Amino acid sequence: MTSILDGRDTDAPVSASPARALVCRGCGAEYPLAAQHACYECFGPLEVGYDPAALARVTRAQIEAGPQNLWRYAGLLPAGQDPASRVTLDPGLTPLVAAPALAAELGLRAPLWVKDDSANPTHSFKDRVVSVALTAARGLGFTRFACASTGNLANSVAAHAARAGVPSIVFIPGDLEPGKVVTTAVYGGDLVAIDGSYDDVNRLCSELVETDEFEDTAFVNVNVRPYYAEGSKTLGYEVAEQLGWRIPEQVVIPMASGELLTKVDKAFSELVEIGLVEAPANGWRVFGAQSAGCNPIATALHDGSDAITPVKPTGIAKSLNIGDPAAGLYALEAVRRTGGWMDYATDEEIREGIRLLARTTGVFAETAGGVTVAVLKKLVESGRLDPDAETVVYNTGEGLKTIDAVASQVGPTHRVKPSLRSVREAGLLG
Amino acid sequence: MTSILDGRDTDAPVSASPARALVCRGCGAEYPLAAQHACYECFGPLEVGYDPAALARVTRAQIEAGPQNLWRYAGLLPAGQDPASRVTLDPGLTPLVAAPALAAELGLRAPLWVKDDSANPTHSFKDRVVSVALTAARGLGFTRFACASTGNLANSVAAHAARAGVPSIVFIPGDLEPGKVVTTAVYGGDLVAIDGSYDDVNRLCSELVETDEFEDTAFVNVNVRPYYAEGSKTLGYEVAEQLGWRIPEQVVIPMASGELLTKVDKAFSELVEIGLVEAPANGWRVFGAQSAGCNPIATALHDGSDAITPVKPTGIAKSLNIGDPAAGLYALEAVRRTGGWMDYATDEEIREGIRLLARTTGVFAETAGGVTVAVLKKLVESGRLDPDAETVVYNTGEGLKTIDAVASQVGPTHRVKPSLRSVREAGLLG
Repeated sequence: MTSILDGRDTDAPVSASPARALVCRGCGAEYPLAAQHACYECFGPLEVGYDPAALARVTRAQIEAGPQNLWRYAGLLPAGQDPASRVTLDPGLTPLVAAPALAAELGLRAPLWVKDDSANPTHSFKDRVVSVALTAARGLGFTRFACASTGNLANSVAAHAARAGVPSIVFIPGDLEPGKVVTTAVYGGDLVAIDGSYDDVNRLCSELVETDEFEDTAFVNVNVRPYYAEGSKTLGYEVAEQLGWRIPEQVVIPMASGELLTKVDKAFSELVEIGLVEAPANGWRVFGAQSAGCNPIATALHDGSDAITPVKPTGIAKSLNIGDPAAGLYALEAVRRTGGWMDYATDEEIREGIRLLARTTGVFAETAGGVTVAVLKKLVESGRLDPDAETVVYNTGEGLKTIDAVASQVGPTHRVKPSLRSVREAGLLG
Repeated sequence: MTSILDGRDTDAPVSASPARALVCRGCGAEYPLAAQHACYECFGPLEVGYDPAALARVTRAQIEAGPQNLWRYAGLLPAGQDPASRVTLDPGLTPLVAAPALAAELGLRAPLWVKDDSANPTHSFKDRVVSVALTAARGLGFTRFACASTGNLANSVAAHAARAGVPSIVFIPGDLEPGKVVTTAVYGGDLVAIDGSYDDVNRLCSELVETDEFEDTAFVNVNVRPYYAEGSKTLGYEVAEQLGWRIPEQVVIPMASGELLTKVDKAFSELVEIGLVEAPANGWRVFGAQSAGCNPIATALHDGSDAITPVKPTGIAKSLNIGDPAAGLYALEAVRRTGGWMDYATDEEIREGIRLLARTTGVFAETAGGVTVAVLKKLVESGRLDPDAETVVYNTGEGLKTIDAVASQVGPTHRVKPSLRSVREAGLLG
């Protein structure tokens, strides 16, 4: 009954979760593995802490014998060790695309790779975090799945719930583009349009999570957020494995909350700590990308500040438009510690980044991918990124979802009548 | 430098192509393996013929040790045996999704699976045929890639050419929706808008292929069509392998030219002939799906006719709108021989099919997938399809590409102000 290629035949359950506790990133206080996301002591964000011995039991062979999706790393995740427990579309193991033409155009001499997460089931990296969050949520007894979102996350939660046959309720701003509404509503769950901004939606969800009526409801990015965030580690594990168990010298990662960047860095650290890979001779350097319309983390870095000043986001890179980024300080720390840098791209540069990536690699990215490629270009030009060091750039979403971003930029190169004569007059026949 | 997970490390070149000749499907005349698509004797379509001994050398172990994409079947394809020869985005090995909720809703008692080819790099099954066609084309010395298309094929050819760094020229009708123009134009090749219908575009391409200026140009669905068509076989091989080397008792396949259906059937026959699988006790039955707006093949079956009367296509399932289907007679033959059936769905049924599939499986299909699910439903209701026999239904494309089809059908289930009181008044809080 099961497919052999989804790998379940080789996917023996890991005995237990390696997760040990929820740990406050601020004060270090520890809590049991429950549905909690903030510290009762200092209100700092909680993160999953692991049993080092449990992590160290994971081997390359075990991973390589696992399924062809992110669950091959179940031994390093807080949930999903038992395949039957998973709430998932089986995302992950997306292509790592060699990008020699892009490297040449940018003046990079070392190998350049694009980690293309548009290949996930609902075509963004959110499928990773949602699979881990909802698997943890079901294990914690939740019977309804929810989120606040303006796009990719809404798609992913609604699709996961449909596959699992679990009710879902997704909250979106009322003025969302019809296309993004359709790609969530089609899965048939509840979809609540809020007459307000995304910030209003988020605030309302934080209130709802405290009500009796939502006691049964896991909001992936609120009450089960620590588990959700861990899903992003798989974007680090995969790149290392796909490079033949090597960590690249440089990674360029888009930042919204900043969490993805911190989790890729955490994944590399874990792989080194448990002996699955060796660190590059000079370590790895982490680079962050934002848009000019929403650049609070990059601005703090450029200003040499230890505080992030929230902004009111503008611009076309809507999936990155978080004006008050929850993990901004941790992203700053990772970039400073590893000797990386951050920069930001204007809307015009984002559009050009999308086109440059498509033209040189065949990968059509959403605006977030345009941000990352545009910032990669800037980092080379400013000398912050070493053109002789191997680099991986992350594309986190699909161009089909933000097609309007380039719709006015590209079109037919020729217009002709259906005759050889007309084709000849257009210069296409000698 | 190469990724281990793209499988090239385990992907030792097969010694040579198993293809032997181009064989006329009409009169059986044979021709060398060149860029030819019609018989000089009877003008019938040509198909790739294989050396049975070469096919028979392929083993399950060889396939299973291959890359995680369609090239694991290189030993059964006319091109791409040497990994370095491939012009490809590495499509294939798309998910085979168990669909118990859909089966229950339709009254199927045996397992039902969705083969979800929206997971390919440009999100349709066309990546399969384009990868095989362009790999053959490069081997035949072509230095420019082309096609006539209204959507999925255009996307795929332009993206393949961009990845390979080869010039491309794609011909489209001038009145194509802007969204479909963007998803092709973004890859940066030549894009020629023709002031005419898709039939006009096709006819022009058939003329261009004969000109000196296009001597270097492979039109994937014209002069290298026999190779192109073979790529569809992989949709048969994969399903058999993913079921644990079994052929399903029933398959439901969308029909445009009818070629995909014939090639899945051909793939099953080959697997049995070379001993890689056993046929089901009562054989397999092939079912074809069309839309009511373009149903020439199904109509011929319903009329008991041996001739296909071309139609002028209408309706929302545009990727299936071929009014004069080149492989229609062969599709009829396969369906009659295997004891299957064909049916067609109205636009309303197609929309409902898209929503039903999304709601029960988390797979968001383009209109062609809606056609197939709607026809599956009809086949169960009419008793043509056995509810106690294992069934695979093919989704060949991505809902994001035909979002307008359901945009008027789905939307927010609730609209509220950003306050608990408003949420309560909407009935969401008890």
